[in-house]
Amino acid sequence: MSKEITARSEDYSKWYNDLVLKGSLADYSAVRGCMVIKPYGYALWEGMRDVLDRKFKDTGHQNAYFPLFIPKSFLSKEAAHIEGFAKECAVVTHYRLKNDPETGGVIVDPEAKLEEELIVRPTSETIIWNTYKDWIQSYRDLPLLINQWANVVRWEMRTRLFLRTAEFLWQEGHTAHATAAEAIAETTQMLDIYADFAENYMAMPVIKGVKSPSERFAGAVDTYCIEALMQDGKALQAGTSHFLGQNFAKAFDVKFSNKENKLDYVWATSWGVSTRLVGALVMAHSDDDGLILPPRIAPLQVVIVPIYKGDEQKAKIDEKVLAIVAELKQAGVRVKYDDSDNQRPGWKFAEYEMKGVPVRIAIGARDLENNVAEVARRDTKVKTSLSLDGLTPQISALLEEIQQQMFDKALAYRDSHITPADTFEEFERLLDEKGGFISAHWDGTAETEEQIKDRTKATIRCIPLNNPQENGTCILTGKPSVQRVLFARAY
Amino acid sequence: MSKEITARSEDYSKWYNDLVLKGSLADYSAVRGCMVIKPYGYALWEGMRDVLDRKFKDTGHQNAYFPLFIPKSFLSKEAAHIEGFAKECAVVTHYRLKNDPETGGVIVDPEAKLEEELIVRPTSETIIWNTYKDWIQSYRDLPLLINQWANVVRWEMRTRLFLRTAEFLWQEGHTAHATAAEAIAETTQMLDIYADFAENYMAMPVIKGVKSPSERFAGAVDTYCIEALMQDGKALQAGTSHFLGQNFAKAFDVKFSNKENKLDYVWATSWGVSTRLVGALVMAHSDDDGLILPPRIAPLQVVIVPIYKGDEQKAKIDEKVLAIVAELKQAGVRVKYDDSDNQRPGWKFAEYEMKGVPVRIAIGARDLENNVAEVARRDTKVKTSLSLDGLTPQISALLEEIQQQMFDKALAYRDSHITPADTFEEFERLLDEKGGFISAHWDGTAETEEQIKDRTKATIRCIPLNNPQENGTCILTGKPSVQRVLFARAY
Repeated sequence: MSKEITARSEDYSKWYNDLVLKGSLADYSAVRGCMVIKPYGYALWEGMRDVLDRKFKDTGHQNAYFPLFIPKSFLSKEAAHIEGFAKECAVVTHYRLKNDPETGGVIVDPEAKLEEELIVRPTSETIIWNTYKDWIQSYRDLPLLINQWANVVRWEMRTRLFLRTAEFLWQEGHTAHATAAEAIAETTQMLDIYADFAENYMAMPVIKGVKSPSERFAGAVDTYCIEALMQDGKALQAGTSHFLGQNFAKAFDVKFSNKENKLDYVWATSWGVSTRLVGALVMAHSDDDGLILPPRIAPLQVVIVPIYKGDEQKAKIDEKVLAIVAELKQAGVRVKYDDSDNQRPGWKFAEYEMKGVPVRIAIGARDLENNVAEVARRDTKVKTSLSLDGLTPQISALLEEIQQQMFDKALAYRDSHITPADTFEEFERLLDEKGGFISAHWDGTAETEEQIKDRTKATIRCIPLNNPQENGTCILTGKPSVQRVLFARAY
Repeated sequence: MSKEITARSEDYSKWYNDLVLKGSLADYSAVRGCMVIKPYGYALWEGMRDVLDRKFKDTGHQNAYFPLFIPKSFLSKEAAHIEGFAKECAVVTHYRLKNDPETGGVIVDPEAKLEEELIVRPTSETIIWNTYKDWIQSYRDLPLLINQWANVVRWEMRTRLFLRTAEFLWQEGHTAHATAAEAIAETTQMLDIYADFAENYMAMPVIKGVKSPSERFAGAVDTYCIEALMQDGKALQAGTSHFLGQNFAKAFDVKFSNKENKLDYVWATSWGVSTRLVGALVMAHSDDDGLILPPRIAPLQVVIVPIYKGDEQKAKIDEKVLAIVAELKQAGVRVKYDDSDNQRPGWKFAEYEMKGVPVRIAIGARDLENNVAEVARRDTKVKTSLSLDGLTPQISALLEEIQQQMFDKALAYRDSHITPADTFEEFERLLDEKGGFISAHWDGTAETEEQIKDRTKATIRCIPLNNPQENGTCILTGKPSVQRVLFARAY
């Protein structure tokens, strides 16, 4: 291998960084906490965006774009919201630089101070609801179903490539409804879309649930989430969908006249997923040799590498492979023929293994004579010799098989890592020895949740939807409880 | 008309704002100089983006994403660059807010001051070339062909919806090459792509040219541009492509070892178009009744409005129209059947006229009996009765005809507004009475250019590519000149 990767067993965190950097997904930047998303990583995000965007539009949402900057006073209008975001926001205070006559350098022009500071959006509820005030008068203007693809900034102190960066890319849906029931239906619809995307495209099983009050989005009445499990046994929140009640409508005085011609505050939702999903994808499936990408999301699904000596062999292979490439493309397969002559086949094999391309096809002169090709799966590393006759349907079927088996494998791992604990000692032991989700009784108070977090670093990931009701006692306080909730250490 | 639009003849500027606001393209926001791009305007931008993105990828470019923030010291590294952007940039100085115990309000936390101020990117040459330093070592790493879709901020004092906003959306290509010749070829290739897009998608003829030194991008060796003409006779710069020489490579010390194994600085280009194109599109074609959008870019190409009395008529029309809609969609036509019953047909006609939908089809009960539909063009307002048999190919052909005729009309207007002037008096008179591009001799100095601008508000839009060489004398100074250049008042 030309690029050494730290083994998961040795240092999981370093393994992750190695994959992101050596897999050409992203790079550190000169700006604290901000990353550069490299072309391969961006292609992955574009693929995710395109699938999600189609799903949003199919459910009646339209894209729009709102300002990057939020006046400080807006952020302060919803009490819980400002409480949640004040501590980590980038503040624009000036609008001009000037030459410094003393040093000859460039300084901020003190005379170009803004009257009111602008916050670089950490999320857009406030600027959007200030706008919705002008757009919504009557029930006929509802529902208003809008999504935005944008960058946001949260000045996180401890950052990780993709998982937690000061600036990240995301989509944020912001919808307005005439009734609470409609808004709640929207919230769960979007949660279902996220879950469907995670499971059927990312091959990453998720648990749908609702957050405990302490873990709610700042300003939400209820936060729904999808929670995934990474290979190190830590959970990762992969998407959230918030029922905002009338909180933002009240903060920005957005009322509508209903069918009975009476004024009422509008009901709201917001929901989002971010470039964090790229990090989740990496950690859910990859191994010590590099990325493993599920076919439906992989920027490149199949790579074909010729193995030859001399121009004559190359010409024969070219002829055959170009026909195969055309046929695969025709069938909608994202395929590349890497016949560049500046690297040897072994180097290419390692490179595409690192990049997680699901299927690698190698064709040599003898293969051509035998009318076969060597087909290698990235996920299982199994190699098969396949006939060149009818290769395209075989490859298409193989891609679907890989997709399904990647999901099945992740699901089996996840399901074997949801463990009940009935005492605090068992809870601690399971967290340390096994990881994953621990299903335990909790007395329902924020104090107990906080104490458990302080003592174990585990948080309540969610209360699963349709959670079985079961009487029990809180693992920490022994107080009565009516249901188990899922705890885990999390990213 | 339910929505009054100011006539162009009365107040062109107000007409433009009316179209943008009442055509639902954009709205003013609470943040000075920043706009909200509404769903219809954003769909227009998405359509443009998708076409351009395909063209970029077809010419070997890949998308990536670089940080929103640029350290102040980076911006200062290229002398002309900082000179050009220092006066209009948003500066982040702090990273936290806190509660103010005195007032109970929220203030910027003075203890959370950044060590070095961050500039919200006005363009990304500096942060990108700082990154390229790590990515480029050898000629094998070149060319590096990268594009970014992003938001940028320039703190403009006088803003106009889409045409000049503090924040805008754009794409910025940043490429690195081994030789000057390759970089120049890239610069002109991208200019050609922009011109092709403007003419064949936006139906907006453009003149390709090079800027005079005073109008160059800050940091460029040469700035190429496409210049369009609006209906009020003012020019609009619709896209630029810069040959940056080795300026940024030198500023950020980006060297590569060439095939002879010698170190040399890398050659650069950058190129961009922005949401300004939406404004250009509006002004190039629309009339006093609303937007007129060219079919290839229109978010909606065809709208079908049923005209009926009672449910029975409606059901019959529905049945026929749903089949037509399916067939049109099959043929790739973006079509909507507006059978909503909360507005009358006349209101709908006005609404789609306002929104510039290229073709409106109305079908009533009698039309159905006669197996025809009334087909109205938005651009010419000509109505025709077309047979429902073979309607789809007729509509497809009509859309292509509209596209071509919109371009031809704009081209005829543009060509009749390129006028030579041989004296300064004639130059001034033409600018005031006719507008458009004035083709005149200029002595080649920045001083003369500046004086002409001060006296007439006209600037040199470009020196057209392949400009005929012709001896003459400068209209202002009488000094010798070897070619005419194009002047105009401009957006």
